[in-house]
Amino acid sequence: MATIKDVAREAGVSVATVSRVLNHSPKASKASVLAVTTAITHLNYQPNPAARALASHHTNTVGVLVGDVSDPFFGTLVKAVDTVAQQNGKNLLIGNGYHRAEDERKAINLLINSRCDALVIHSKGLSDQALIDYAQQVKSLVLINRYIPELADRCISLNNSKGTYIATEYLIRHGHTHIAYINSSHDIEDATQRLQGYKDALAAHNIDLNESYIETTEPCIEGGEQAMTNLLSKSLPISAVITYNDNMAAGAINILEDNEIKVPDNISVIGFDDGLIARYVRPQLTTVRYPIYLMAEEATKLALNLINVNNIHAIPRIFSPTLVRRNSVINKI
Amino acid sequence: MATIKDVAREAGVSVATVSRVLNHSPKASKASVLAVTTAITHLNYQPNPAARALASHHTNTVGVLVGDVSDPFFGTLVKAVDTVAQQNGKNLLIGNGYHRAEDERKAINLLINSRCDALVIHSKGLSDQALIDYAQQVKSLVLINRYIPELADRCISLNNSKGTYIATEYLIRHGHTHIAYINSSHDIEDATQRLQGYKDALAAHNIDLNESYIETTEPCIEGGEQAMTNLLSKSLPISAVITYNDNMAAGAINILEDNEIKVPDNISVIGFDDGLIARYVRPQLTTVRYPIYLMAEEATKLALNLINVNNIHAIPRIFSPTLVRRNSVINKI
Repeated sequence: MATIKDVAREAGVSVATVSRVLNHSPKASKASVLAVTTAITHLNYQPNPAARALASHHTNTVGVLVGDVSDPFFGTLVKAVDTVAQQNGKNLLIGNGYHRAEDERKAINLLINSRCDALVIHSKGLSDQALIDYAQQVKSLVLINRYIPELADRCISLNNSKGTYIATEYLIRHGHTHIAYINSSHDIEDATQRLQGYKDALAAHNIDLNESYIETTEPCIEGGEQAMTNLLSKSLPISAVITYNDNMAAGAINILEDNEIKVPDNISVIGFDDGLIARYVRPQLTTVRYPIYLMAEEATKLALNLINVNNIHAIPRIFSPTLVRRNSVINKI
Repeated sequence: MATIKDVAREAGVSVATVSRVLNHSPKASKASVLAVTTAITHLNYQPNPAARALASHHTNTVGVLVGDVSDPFFGTLVKAVDTVAQQNGKNLLIGNGYHRAEDERKAINLLINSRCDALVIHSKGLSDQALIDYAQQVKSLVLINRYIPELADRCISLNNSKGTYIATEYLIRHGHTHIAYINSSHDIEDATQRLQGYKDALAAHNIDLNESYIETTEPCIEGGEQAMTNLLSKSLPISAVITYNDNMAAGAINILEDNEIKVPDNISVIGFDDGLIARYVRPQLTTVRYPIYLMAEEATKLALNLINVNNIHAIPRIFSPTLVRRNSVINKI
């Protein structure tokens, strides 16, 4: 493989000149740029990225932390980051944090030690203070799906409570008053906020909150099955259910179907996310759209901008969920 | 941030000695190991990975190429590679090739130029020769879900035809003789081999092949819907359908349900993959298990072994699919 010395010899210039051309130095003359470029093409020279990284303290790599890359939600997030990174000539390094503080810390340290130029971090395990500390250390770190007031201009987050609020209100406008909510047992802000949105919408429409209508389980298909089974066991006059995510909606619908309770004729269901899973649920799922691809694109662009800019204009970066109407809700009016 | 010079000063040794300790050189004395280790802890020194990579020509990084990380099949593959990589103290660099030759080439070049220690490559776009060339260049490159005779000991592949063969035979043993096959329109060996397995099983049981029973569409839920619609339009006396993958099975079941044809009472369905999607299909899908997690673990271990070993014992690394019996097939006997 050709080295920088071979290029210098072929071009008839010094190694320092080759280096200046490679680094786009204004000191490189037009003649030397031409000679070096020709020699590079002729020799098929590939600059050693480790050497370049050492010289520039950059690795041309974007790091991304997710919960678990095998979950399609995070697969979509990673794909968006990768797409923007590629458009900017960057590679991608990924870490899994599994929403556990220690795993997240280990993964972020690895990304930092790998000298990533920019970091897009989806953290649910670490404290606000721990993330503020990281953000001070790495100026191009952006948080996604998290809001920390001290880092407002480096957070791309979702208005979670608005999502369940509009879902609940949509059901109320369609004549439902006995609305159950299936909550996630994970101790993360998404769960707290989505539950709050449901409660707020009931209160705004003067519907009394009945805690029996709320079940809390693991945010997966089995959790949805368990929660729906519990709700049916309580013999409540439920006409509609909102779930923390689409996985739980799929589980709830399975149990309703097993018990010959028709969706939406007997019970309406609204999910949350509108990711890949929503396409496989039957009847087609009315759900709250979480624009994660869009948010991850924005987070990556912001992180890449932060490499070169010290002060960014602080604009709100809180995205809004929207309702996607399909076939799992019936109008009772 | 502390540098290697700071460590040398603090420890009262030369920079070369610190380097020897960092690289676990046998020339480092016990006294210097102690002094340097103490200084490193005291100064919280973190060796610059780019500098270490340059010195060792290694980056402690495993590279993985997949079709598209947002597809759960590849998410599972990436997770397995990541898990084995982490266990071996390695980071992960991922590339998307989208099954297109040029994208795959670009992504592999990027991984090679990033000096990955080991490569796990899922390539469907590049020719055998192009991959043989890469394998000669990178001795720790392993192919997954591909079989090239010249690289037999560096290929982790699946016996695709066996998968559809056992699915077809399972239906025949349960009294089905009018079995349709929904094929993928992607021009990759998986599609050719799975179609062949279906044909071979029919032939082995003296059932005439009728090309009208085969539909070829995109390997997604919509493709399955389109193919099933076409099959129904032809008024064939079909009692069972095998699909190229679970996504297509989900689509086929949607159309059958829309037409009030019960699964499995009227028509049985068998999918292929048994990935995340299979858990969301109702009735619960009888399918062919593709052990992609296991295969990706094996591929990564093999790639990591190849870093240090020049000749590996050539053993067959062709995995077998297995039938997973659930609720989408009826016994007609």
